[in-house]
Amino acid sequence: MSKSYSFLFIGFAAVLSLAINFSIINGQPIPRQKLQFYNESAESIVRAALIEQRGYGWLRELCAIGPRLSGSENSLKAIYWAEEKMKSLGFDSVWLQPVMVPKWVRGKTEKASISYSKKYKNKKLTIVSFGGSIGTPPTGISAEVIEVKSLDEVKYLGDKAKGKIIFYNRSFDNGLLNTFEGYGKAVDQRINGAIEAARHGAVATIVRSVQSGIDNIPHTGVMNYEEGINKIPAAAIGIRDADFLSNALKDEPALKIKINMDCQIFPDVQSYNVIGQLTGSVKPEEVIVVGGHFDSWDKGCGAHDDGAPCIQTMEALDLIKRTGIKPRRTIRCVLFINEENGLRGGIEYGRFSGISNEINLAAIESDRGAFTPRGFNVTTDSLTFRRLQDWLPILNKANIDWIRPGGSGGDVAQIKNAKALFGYVPDVQRYMDLHHSDNDIFSAVHPREMELGSAAIAILSMLLSEEGL
Amino acid sequence: MSKSYSFLFIGFAAVLSLAINFSIINGQPIPRQKLQFYNESAESIVRAALIEQRGYGWLRELCAIGPRLSGSENSLKAIYWAEEKMKSLGFDSVWLQPVMVPKWVRGKTEKASISYSKKYKNKKLTIVSFGGSIGTPPTGISAEVIEVKSLDEVKYLGDKAKGKIIFYNRSFDNGLLNTFEGYGKAVDQRINGAIEAARHGAVATIVRSVQSGIDNIPHTGVMNYEEGINKIPAAAIGIRDADFLSNALKDEPALKIKINMDCQIFPDVQSYNVIGQLTGSVKPEEVIVVGGHFDSWDKGCGAHDDGAPCIQTMEALDLIKRTGIKPRRTIRCVLFINEENGLRGGIEYGRFSGISNEINLAAIESDRGAFTPRGFNVTTDSLTFRRLQDWLPILNKANIDWIRPGGSGGDVAQIKNAKALFGYVPDVQRYMDLHHSDNDIFSAVHPREMELGSAAIAILSMLLSEEGL
Repeated sequence: MSKSYSFLFIGFAAVLSLAINFSIINGQPIPRQKLQFYNESAESIVRAALIEQRGYGWLRELCAIGPRLSGSENSLKAIYWAEEKMKSLGFDSVWLQPVMVPKWVRGKTEKASISYSKKYKNKKLTIVSFGGSIGTPPTGISAEVIEVKSLDEVKYLGDKAKGKIIFYNRSFDNGLLNTFEGYGKAVDQRINGAIEAARHGAVATIVRSVQSGIDNIPHTGVMNYEEGINKIPAAAIGIRDADFLSNALKDEPALKIKINMDCQIFPDVQSYNVIGQLTGSVKPEEVIVVGGHFDSWDKGCGAHDDGAPCIQTMEALDLIKRTGIKPRRTIRCVLFINEENGLRGGIEYGRFSGISNEINLAAIESDRGAFTPRGFNVTTDSLTFRRLQDWLPILNKANIDWIRPGGSGGDVAQIKNAKALFGYVPDVQRYMDLHHSDNDIFSAVHPREMELGSAAIAILSMLLSEEGL
Repeated sequence: MSKSYSFLFIGFAAVLSLAINFSIINGQPIPRQKLQFYNESAESIVRAALIEQRGYGWLRELCAIGPRLSGSENSLKAIYWAEEKMKSLGFDSVWLQPVMVPKWVRGKTEKASISYSKKYKNKKLTIVSFGGSIGTPPTGISAEVIEVKSLDEVKYLGDKAKGKIIFYNRSFDNGLLNTFEGYGKAVDQRINGAIEAARHGAVATIVRSVQSGIDNIPHTGVMNYEEGINKIPAAAIGIRDADFLSNALKDEPALKIKINMDCQIFPDVQSYNVIGQLTGSVKPEEVIVVGGHFDSWDKGCGAHDDGAPCIQTMEALDLIKRTGIKPRRTIRCVLFINEENGLRGGIEYGRFSGISNEINLAAIESDRGAFTPRGFNVTTDSLTFRRLQDWLPILNKANIDWIRPGGSGGDVAQIKNAKALFGYVPDVQRYMDLHHSDNDIFSAVHPREMELGSAAIAILSMLLSEEGL
């Protein structure tokens, strides 16, 4: 070994010694016998999930109820369905946690067309109202259209915006690997577009549907109004119609479109988080939460967002139970209501987690669809993060390739003082084709992909429950 | 540091010193400036693939030609289409490599029904002939049925098999994570079932369709006969009909089924491998092959098997070219003919690779469908394997999470003395739902998933071409 490499060697050795010390601080590696138990349990869990596909069957039942918008009758039906299902599975405790939620109803009319034009008159445009939007007057709103690509552009319109319909037409960036990033870069138009347009006197706004797919089925989602600024109707327009309209405007800048929407906001109503648990046999006061949001938008049936992921977390408990594991710590499934337009369920559970006498050990959220598993995001300290990497070979049996630093999810992030917050991460390439739209239906979920997610969450829950953090 | 840890430390240090030596033997790590170039190139490649989706457009054209069974007119149309496409993309050389291939034609008749039974007479059963099977006499074959679960079971039937139709009904094991393993565990019934049945005097054989899905659309595939053993017709039966037949046999063991098939084997015909390359600017004699098999079965249109994967390898060259990279070594796309029922294309290219004056540096095969990327298998020496791990962060930009030891593919495995043989591995959860069946159509391919595969193969080809091995 040459001198310079000896020097390198000493440096490496120092790093290595640190690493060894970390592993001492961190607790022992998993003893061989325990490791064998975890490996065998993980194999049983994966096999049971893939062969029996129970959760996929439950998803079929859930989707038959229909979409589950917060405050809707359907959402209550789904809540009672889940409560019954958890009871029938023999969970140790099952209960409903009351939450007041907003109620917004789409109504029956939702249409747009070109109302003034030489060439394009009466051409229909496919729209869907955004959740929380007010409706139009019964006779609709007809106005000239100004196309913009950003909220900033509206600021520069000044008086020109007055009396107009603002048409946000910035495309989804399909060039990014992560479709959630593409979504994040486009969705400000939907969320805050109406505020900015109304601030400058616009009478309505339509927004290019935020989606990765190329069909003309517009995607809905939540939108905001701001205190003191006029509320104006807001809707998504299908991307093919958005392209058509954009071209038509180049041809005839003075064309008008007419929008009719009869959606309505009602007072808050009673709803519930659905909670069921396997109570810990040794440390029942230490709680691992697994869950997703049980509400959906009112398009499709919320199969991927967030029906199947919710069911994955229910099925995780069932898989652990069927595998014959009596968890040392409590594993609790929480189906949070109202993530889509209020987060009230997550906030309520978070409040409860702060005043209960329990220890909030960890939580796993599943809210990125139910496609094939890839990994887990985790928010935790660096020693725990390092320790979790040792669990990867076990999780790999359910197609989990990594544990990376990253966000968990809006609901479980409300839990107070948890040592580790996980987000289950399936593949996301197809997700933004269907998210919040009529495409999000039962047949878009693949049974093996969904079931591997249930197995992955079950295995991680088992490890957290048996090993602690 | 305690004594026992000191001891451990010395052990670790020894391993570490070895690791350092490996890295010296192995060549320097990639210099910073080059690394930046690779990272930027990879990002450009991914972005171009996802935004322009050229390959996905080509797949639409290819699928419009129809399925591409070796020796068929369609397969020649597809070959000329690919030759033209490569020329139009401006590859440095494009040529056809002649190969004689077998010709088997399904014919027009392919049906089965229950021909003798009290309860089930005339019930139709959905079948598809296996590739290479002989037909039945024009009046069909009607016989009693014996259900078995394995080839071994047939051996024990002895004389009982005489004059009967052997019904292989062992299920696909859906409990395995890797669907290719499930396939491997069931496919002997299809491949060698007719030999074993005929050896014991059976007159035909039907085999439970080898698939992960639960529909009744049977999957075809290659089958063998053995010199000196009677050739008998062989077909797959849809799995729902297989379950029906199994139950009916319990009820009426003496029921008969009748099979009519008019498929035929013809003499070999002329065909071609399609080859196109970007010629190396510095070391043109060092060749990196990328490719898949261009033939398909005659069901569906071979979109995932192996149309899209072939196109991924063509597009990889196009992506490198469009990104402005002049590869140092030659990157050659080879679309092998006749993998499904003969491997003649792979064998011919292998023969050529053994006598040419070129250096066969590496090859990448894409023949596991075009779902979302996961990793690369590689067969290589341990030092090269270790070095390849350094490339992972670059490949990760195209959703590649790992490089693992493993098989490449039947075609590129024929290449002589290559230093590394890679198999591109996309996710396989959905693949066995559609493989070799009417389900394998254009709409089963997702544009983003397919395009990320093209990008992954392009990036790995670029690294091989620029860095060498």
